Amino acid sequence: MKDRYLDFVNSPFGTSIARSLGLPRPETLRRQRADQAEFGGMAAIGAGPSPALFDDLMGTLSAIGMTSIAHESASGWLPVAARHGAMSGRFEPRTHDAAAHDRVQALIFDATGIDDAGQLHSLYAFFHDALRSLGKNGRIVVLGRPPATRASVAASTAQYALDGMTRSLGKEARNGITANLLRVTEGADIDSALRFFLSPRSAYVSGQSVSIDYPAVAPESWATPLAGKRALVTGAARGIGASIASVLAAHGAIVTGLDVAAARDALDQTMLSIEDSAPSGGAHAALVADIGAPEAPVEIAAALLASGGIDIVVHNAGITRDKTIARMSGEMWDSVIDINLLAQARIDEVLLAENVLRAGGRIVAVSSISGIAGNRGQTNYATSKSGVIGRVHAMAPALRERGITINAVAPGFIETHMTARMPFGVREAGRRLNSLGQGGLPVDVAETVAWLASPGSAGITGNVVRVCGQSLIGA
Amino acid sequence: MKDRYLDFVNSPFGTSIARSLGLPRPETLRRQRADQAEFGGMAAIGAGPSPALFDDLMGTLSAIGMTSIAHESASGWLPVAARHGAMSGRFEPRTHDAAAHDRVQALIFDATGIDDAGQLHSLYAFFHDALRSLGKNGRIVVLGRPPATRASVAASTAQYALDGMTRSLGKEARNGITANLLRVTEGADIDSALRFFLSPRSAYVSGQSVSIDYPAVAPESWATPLAGKRALVTGAARGIGASIASVLAAHGAIVTGLDVAAARDALDQTMLSIEDSAPSGGAHAALVADIGAPEAPVEIAAALLASGGIDIVVHNAGITRDKTIARMSGEMWDSVIDINLLAQARIDEVLLAENVLRAGGRIVAVSSISGIAGNRGQTNYATSKSGVIGRVHAMAPALRERGITINAVAPGFIETHMTARMPFGVREAGRRLNSLGQGGLPVDVAETVAWLASPGSAGITGNVVRVCGQSLIGA
Repeated sequence: MKDRYLDFVNSPFGTSIARSLGLPRPETLRRQRADQAEFGGMAAIGAGPSPALFDDLMGTLSAIGMTSIAHESASGWLPVAARHGAMSGRFEPRTHDAAAHDRVQALIFDATGIDDAGQLHSLYAFFHDALRSLGKNGRIVVLGRPPATRASVAASTAQYALDGMTRSLGKEARNGITANLLRVTEGADIDSALRFFLSPRSAYVSGQSVSIDYPAVAPESWATPLAGKRALVTGAARGIGASIASVLAAHGAIVTGLDVAAARDALDQTMLSIEDSAPSGGAHAALVADIGAPEAPVEIAAALLASGGIDIVVHNAGITRDKTIARMSGEMWDSVIDINLLAQARIDEVLLAENVLRAGGRIVAVSSISGIAGNRGQTNYATSKSGVIGRVHAMAPALRERGITINAVAPGFIETHMTARMPFGVREAGRRLNSLGQGGLPVDVAETVAWLASPGSAGITGNVVRVCGQSLIGA
Repeated sequence: MKDRYLDFVNSPFGTSIARSLGLPRPETLRRQRADQAEFGGMAAIGAGPSPALFDDLMGTLSAIGMTSIAHESASGWLPVAARHGAMSGRFEPRTHDAAAHDRVQALIFDATGIDDAGQLHSLYAFFHDALRSLGKNGRIVVLGRPPATRASVAASTAQYALDGMTRSLGKEARNGITANLLRVTEGADIDSALRFFLSPRSAYVSGQSVSIDYPAVAPESWATPLAGKRALVTGAARGIGASIASVLAAHGAIVTGLDVAAARDALDQTMLSIEDSAPSGGAHAALVADIGAPEAPVEIAAALLASGGIDIVVHNAGITRDKTIARMSGEMWDSVIDINLLAQARIDEVLLAENVLRAGGRIVAVSSISGIAGNRGQTNYATSKSGVIGRVHAMAPALRERGITINAVAPGFIETHMTARMPFGVREAGRRLNSLGQGGLPVDVAETVAWLASPGSAGITGNVVRVCGQSLIGA
């Protein structure tokens, strides 16, 4: 569970050893801490022709207290800043790496107006000039349009190409820098996604393309965006599930943590520790149920209705029963499909039919990189996690009518008790084969879930967001 | 260009060394050879409930001379075989690896009727029983439906999950075995795709999901399906382009190979060697043009119109100008975007406006795994190749009205002069980081292009088919 290599090469002694031997030195990622400001520093702004999101972007930057400077590609930025009463200046390219105190914390490029591949040159110009000025744990965010919404083939092509650019930037940047693409439909709200991708909360999310299609309403407080919301988290006793429960509570939600009877002690302990630390106080609950049991959905619904229903369902409970298929028993296949996939469907069916999950609700399902790429020795697990993605795609349109969003998170290599038991070679490969050169933490998955569960994310549905440090592994 | 490790571990001496040291031993892939029958041996058939494609499948197997045996999951297969006047028998599961003479050459599963994830158990049962009976260079083909065409969320979910299953099988199988998923819309023709994925021609294509959406007409001869067709191949002088020109000609097409003036000698030599060996005889032509020049499209169109127009366009010409973005010049960016992406658009525009590309035509564009996953030091290349994919998606619907298909192939690590110049470590990683444990050959890309260009592939459009041995690398 402890990444000793990462700690070593970031220690004063290890740093010099790693330097002299030319060893890779993954950055210690900056994560959200209660005693540190979430945002700060400066964003450099670039743009293609006719950028559509300057006003929205300026609004978010002002609200989170980031200052800005405009690259020459973003000549329209300074008037917008003036209109918002914000200070801004011009970005000066450097020929060498910027000194630490001159570094910016984010590079944001508005590519929404690009309607021909020739105009992609503006992205080149911006990142060519600005990448070396981006500091450790910096953020790259590219704003584009969903290709299918473009009127011309040329525009659709160019917008699609932003994906290859953003992913390449993620692979080129070092020092804990992430790079992500937001594909924003006209009229959709970017505030929630921008805050997430500029925040330390998205430390292990890189190389992703997220579609934002609809308007949203800002939460009353961005510090506790889930205040007044009730959430169900399955598999909450330990690991990623416990972290999700804890983070949702820290964001203000009242959480019901569910797990099986065998995990009752761990579950009680998890929920107690949340009681002690979360702002919403004493209403969290532990619920013991076996989601594989046919009567579970009705029992769960009854328990949740007793407190008036819920707003957020996180399908996190899952099991592995790994074997190559020739050695796998039928029971190993069936139990994994049932717990990881069919149980989600059975629970949602009851929660939706009885309106236990209220209008405007959120469903977040935990998939896996194995569900995207397949995995040796995990035909059952990969099939179930692939099905989770299929279910998200299939349900999103119908749920839209009720204002409910459904999205999946797909963890890559996350440091848990499970990965701690892997053979050394497998674990090391999993840790290093990604752009950030290290495994993620449960909190990285949890923060991503919390973002998708936020009122501000009403416009984000049908997405699969990998939490994998831009793993090399994919489909 | 020579994979010495692959040759060594498959030599009599090397095999025993590799065995005693426990070294990985990638299989020497069986590729199509004029002196060997393309098809043969036996296919084991499995199925979920209500399989819809037994008749089509039986038709193809009979036509290509493969025999069949039915797994217990495919109880309806024997009556269908009887109706077709074909012999068939029952598949008997083995508890250990089958002896070589008992092995089957293909495992084919009809999953089209699966409308709930619980029914995925039938896939488990079939592959659990049958995977050990599949011989070297064997083929796994799963037949499903496009998830978006299913009426229920449960059916859509289960159909989507086939992807995780097929990819996992591809990663689990060894010995040169490939695994692919065909997503077949009702009424679409599977003959062309089945033949390709059962053939040695698809030796390096694995882990792919291909959508087949429309009916097609069988070519007069499956030996020379492109007889009477005229094709343009850009970048035809060397490497993958030369192989594409050669394979299209071997399939019966009359090929115009295009390349720049600097490559004129190589181009002439390539086209001459095609003259000598291809069945269509002496009509192949070399065309010298710089597709980066503004006048090129009109000149190309004029040259092609002189011989009455064309049926197939293969956009293969491409360049690399690799540098990290901070060190990349504007000219390096622009030239790669222009040649790899914009030139394709300029040429198609003229060919389509003037009907130089005839109704029922085919466009096949060469993308790259870098366009899917991004790549360090290749922001320009990855962006251009990502745009190629975007263009395929954007153009497919409108071209459908003219009976023209457009698809992309995305090569992974292919053994060429370019990869031969890579540093040893990079080359070895590229070669081994895929399910087949080796690089592909230019002919693997060429055969995939020829399949997509075939009259039988009229139902396949808007797809991106990776030719990568199921590379670990993806998005």
